Amino acid sequence: MKVAIIMGSTSDMPVMQDAIDILRGFDIEIEVDIVSAHRTPEKLFDFSKNAHNRDIKVIIAGAGGAAHLPGMVASLSPLPVIGVPVKSSNSIDGWDSVLSILQMPGGVPVATVALNGAKNAGILAAQIISTADKCVLDKVIAYKEGLKIKVEEGAKAVKQ
Amino acid sequence: MKVAIIMGSTSDMPVMQDAIDILRGFDIEIEVDIVSAHRTPEKLFDFSKNAHNRDIKVIIAGAGGAAHLPGMVASLSPLPVIGVPVKSSNSIDGWDSVLSILQMPGGVPVATVALNGAKNAGILAAQIISTADKCVLDKVIAYKEGLKIKVEEGAKAVKQ
Amino acid sequence: MKVAIIMGSTSDMPVMQDAIDILRGFDIEIEVDIVSAHRTPEKLFDFSKNAHNRDIKVIIAGAGGAAHLPGMVASLSPLPVIGVPVKSSNSIDGWDSVLSILQMPGGVPVATVALNGAKNAGILAAQIISTADKCVLDKVIAYKEGLKIKVEEGAKAVKQ
Amino acid sequence: MKVAIIMGSTSDMPVMQDAIDILRGFDIEIEVDIVSAHRTPEKLFDFSKNAHNRDIKVIIAGAGGAAHLPGMVASLSPLPVIGVPVKSSNSIDGWDSVLSILQMPGGVPVATVALNGAKNAGILAAQIISTADKCVLDKVIAYKEGLKIKVEEGAKAVKQ
Amino acid sequence: MKVAIIMGSTSDMPVMQDAIDILRGFDIEIEVDIVSAHRTPEKLFDFSKNAHNRDIKVIIAGAGGAAHLPGMVASLSPLPVIGVPVKSSNSIDGWDSVLSILQMPGGVPVATVALNGAKNAGILAAQIISTADKCVLDKVIAYKEGLKIKVEEGAKAVKQ
Amino acid sequence: MKVAIIMGSTSDMPVMQDAIDILRGFDIEIEVDIVSAHRTPEKLFDFSKNAHNRDIKVIIAGAGGAAHLPGMVASLSPLPVIGVPVKSSNSIDGWDSVLSILQMPGGVPVATVALNGAKNAGILAAQIISTADKCVLDKVIAYKEGLKIKVEEGAKAVKQ
Amino acid sequence: MKVAIIMGSTSDMPVMQDAIDILRGFDIEIEVDIVSAHRTPEKLFDFSKNAHNRDIKVIIAGAGGAAHLPGMVASLSPLPVIGVPVKSSNSIDGWDSVLSILQMPGGVPVATVALNGAKNAGILAAQIISTADKCVLDKVIAYKEGLKIKVEEGAKAVKQ
Amino acid sequence: MKVAIIMGSTSDMPVMQDAIDILRGFDIEIEVDIVSAHRTPEKLFDFSKNAHNRDIKVIIAGAGGAAHLPGMVASLSPLPVIGVPVKSSNSIDGWDSVLSILQMPGGVPVATVALNGAKNAGILAAQIISTADKCVLDKVIAYKEGLKIKVEEGAKAVKQ
Repeated sequence: MKVAIIMGSTSDMPVMQDAIDILRGFDIEIEVDIVSAHRTPEKLFDFSKNAHNRDIKVIIAGAGGAAHLPGMVASLSPLPVIGVPVKSSNSIDGWDSVLSILQMPGGVPVATVALNGAKNAGILAAQIISTADKCVLDKVIAYKEGLKIKVEEGAKAVKQ
Repeated sequence: MKVAIIMGSTSDMPVMQDAIDILRGFDIEIEVDIVSAHRTPEKLFDFSKNAHNRDIKVIIAGAGGAAHLPGMVASLSPLPVIGVPVKSSNSIDGWDSVLSILQMPGGVPVATVALNGAKNAGILAAQIISTADKCVLDKVIAYKEGLKIKVEEGAKAVKQ
Repeated sequence: MKVAIIMGSTSDMPVMQDAIDILRGFDIEIEVDIVSAHRTPEKLFDFSKNAHNRDIKVIIAGAGGAAHLPGMVASLSPLPVIGVPVKSSNSIDGWDSVLSILQMPGGVPVATVALNGAKNAGILAAQIISTADKCVLDKVIAYKEGLKIKVEEGAKAVKQ
Repeated sequence: MKVAIIMGSTSDMPVMQDAIDILRGFDIEIEVDIVSAHRTPEKLFDFSKNAHNRDIKVIIAGAGGAAHLPGMVASLSPLPVIGVPVKSSNSIDGWDSVLSILQMPGGVPVATVALNGAKNAGILAAQIISTADKCVLDKVIAYKEGLKIKVEEGAKAVKQ
Repeated sequence: MKVAIIMGSTSDMPVMQDAIDILRGFDIEIEVDIVSAHRTPEKLFDFSKNAHNRDIKVIIAGAGGAAHLPGMVASLSPLPVIGVPVKSSNSIDGWDSVLSILQMPGGVPVATVALNGAKNAGILAAQIISTADKCVLDKVIAYKEGLKIKVEEGAKAVKQ
Repeated sequence: MKVAIIMGSTSDMPVMQDAIDILRGFDIEIEVDIVSAHRTPEKLFDFSKNAHNRDIKVIIAGAGGAAHLPGMVASLSPLPVIGVPVKSSNSIDGWDSVLSILQMPGGVPVATVALNGAKNAGILAAQIISTADKCVLDKVIAYKEGLKIKVEEGAKAVKQ
Repeated sequence: MKVAIIMGSTSDMPVMQDAIDILRGFDIEIEVDIVSAHRTPEKLFDFSKNAHNRDIKVIIAGAGGAAHLPGMVASLSPLPVIGVPVKSSNSIDGWDSVLSILQMPGGVPVATVALNGAKNAGILAAQIISTADKCVLDKVIAYKEGLKIKVEEGAKAVKQ
Repeated sequence: MKVAIIMGSTSDMPVMQDAIDILRGFDIEIEVDIVSAHRTPEKLFDFSKNAHNRDIKVIIAGAGGAAHLPGMVASLSPLPVIGVPVKSSNSIDGWDSVLSILQMPGGVPVATVALNGAKNAGILAAQIISTADKCVLDKVIAYKEGLKIKVEEGAKAVKQ
């Protein structure tokens, strides 16, 4: 039971690392690869067609600019696909990344998270896994409790 | 094992009906309710806090304008939350709906679909369920095959 | 008779400090806290439900990205709520912050100020207090006179 | 103790009527006038300079396009000014109306509500009045309770 | 020597008809097909991989929303690809269509024309063909002369 | 025969200096002042009401954010007013500055130039003066010839 | 002493008619023509190069989409050029028309008015003429007085 | 058989260099020049009118802000024109550059590439040449193979 994390270019790695870190924190097995919709379309096909037969349960795909990777994976795989719009250097303030991932036509959804929101992509993948794994659900609940504690510490600092 | 479909107002119903229809087509049990983040915040709390204890596995939340419903549900529930930005009458061409659902802070993801994309929200919910239910996975695969057939019929018509 | 200044994260503090400073300059009592709509929703509820019973007259709430704090406080409290859209690091040039605070549905207003406009939020809070406090009204009038003097000094410098 | 409702043109009346209706519902005295920043600047000056001496406590100003009325009133009056961006016929989808009202410089706030959000402007004015009038506060609380009831009626209809 | 005109859906046909008409006017052989990147990805692959071996010289691809068709064809074919952003019913005012076609990463160009600009896509295809075909070049020059005449007729009407 | 150059704040001076320089280059008399629509509204009135009686022929007004200065001067003066949208520190990428100057209602024009385009404001003022002053017209013609020479020098450098 | 009113297409006529009407109301001589930057570039050159020798004092140019007409006239003529962005059928909500007219490079100004703001283009042309013609200046002043009267009539109607 | 690469200003050179480099890599003859639509309109005319008689097959034109160069060249030449929107210093985040190049009216296409996408402009020019030159087509195919290899190297590095 794995989550695959793919991205269009090694330059997306600093953003996508957040998804890797969060899933490792949840002890969920991952695999990471570079798959470019525009430069390695055959690899995109092979990866997407077979992922659900390789015990992968969720695919996280990050890309920027005219970002076709998440949508094309969603076209080829029956698995839930989480798209991370990356604010890459060639992007117009991130709008192209967001719109070309979010605005998928009826029939082929991509679960889109915030611009550069790879951390949330990882949490969402864990939540999807948790729908069938009580142990992961408990970790998600614990994670959310941890968020509160950090806010409370900040609140104390502000009041002093 | 249910999918909850909630929305901020009865005026969102024409858009959200697509999610209902698609999930019924997949024979997945649903419950439907109106929950307004801004007008019924207590109901929002009660619903969100308890959903994962009521055999609900995925929550689909649709809202428009300054659309806080999906994000607040995600704040209160450990379940995966799918957000549907609705182009409501008070929306600025849908941009407010999209941005106030998509741009969640790190720690609290909402799986956002396209503007008015309730159909895709339903399919995505089915895909999430299918990660633990081989029978639903087969239906998703069959659904995607059906999409191809419709395109091919259109292609034939165009060529004639 | 107090003004509460809350924000979603300690990272909003540099922006929100302007509201603190201006209200101190008007000798209006304040309280400051971190309240995150997405990470501490119970605190949000407790704070908002009780504020009007604790001699708070106005609430200033600052947040960025999908900024739900001001709107959710407005949902839960009968007090006037002033929203400060913060251009946080995860924001798309501030548009998400602005639209998710400004575009509230009919029935639940948020008095929105400019992006990062915490100073104006403070002045607006003072103006609201001044509707029932002649002494604060005089300070507002004096403050506005002070603005003129600064412009005139700049005008002199330019003419030389 | 009155709320003044002004607008730049009679063509703004259909939008601004919502503010009139809501304030009448709260039994708050109002006065209504057409004041154009660009066509009747002297009237703008006279009105704004004297409003706080005529028992007016809050000013609601609606305008569209390059909407200077709310900001100029705020420049000239010490009272809290609520700005209603109107999506007028000459507006670029409302963006000009919103930005030219919202983005006031430090020192001169305008409490901006949603595009065409005159209803919320009226409620906000009532909330401001309520900070010194327990009777109006009770009406605001009752109004919010009424919002819940309508949602619950909608929820019932949806479930059937 | 042919131009292929493909589109993601039969609903794009009213827009794409302009490309068909203009190329027929230039007596350039065309073929028309429906190829959906998201619903018929295998057809997309087959078509794109083989087009340059079937005497096709230019591919015109029209799509709307998260429009991946032109970019994916460009990924798979060495031929020049002209992208037509279609303002489809699920598009956010056309911005998603434009950005997801235009903003291709370095290495994989799509020659993008205006929103719904299928007529210009046809002319551009003719211009590309004309770089090696003097006869088509003469037709392009004649076509442009024809544009002038129409303007002059309009000018005469206006002056009267 | 003078051109007045006014701006909302001394912080606009680095941008507006270009207008000063270009008009000095044309030997056109100027006067420079700080006039803030929001902080010195009385000065705005006095200046605008009297400018055409003080041998001023054109007014250049620069401002940023919710930029009301050019429009309010145009409201009060019969002279042609040139508006310079300034990308000030509180502006949302300049969009607020542009829209709140450009989108004036019918009856009260502002001749708007590009964001930070004070140089062009100066040239435009000279062109307006030149409609009645052949000597300035000759200078404008000479200035435009000078632009060509600079481009040609750049072209030579590129070719080497 | 004439004002030339040109536009890129006869389809711009309904918008541009406002400029014709207002200038006729000021008894200023006009000439009207269709000049397309993209379809009749030679006519554009001839017109622009010679206008200032034909007693034309101001040029009003209206165009939509990628609107190059005003900027190219400004490139070729020393006269003040007023640009009217037209929201034509092929425009993306008018943004392309506005930006391609407004954002001229340093050295070549276009005096841009609001989207579809041909009426204001006419008034601005009259104001430019009035800098050297006291009689036109008096008409401008009278026109502005007329604006006030209309507002006052509207105000009376609203108060009743 | 040449490709002409022109740009509006020497400041566009750092962006446009990518087109030069890529075409040299394909051994395609180029010529480079500065041609400003707004400052050297006569040169624009001469260049555009004669290019197709000088063995030029494709014109690449780069410009920023209100970018009229590509469209005016396309108006005057029958050759395919590739437009490169440059994010110049005076541009509003590149939106003006993109829209004033992309949104050409029916009849006069510009093949637009991504913001600052000069590399893709070069590849597209090579693809156009390759429609009649099998040798260049083979180079394009080889170039695309090279893209894959780089991605695979990145993928290996990521997996380690």
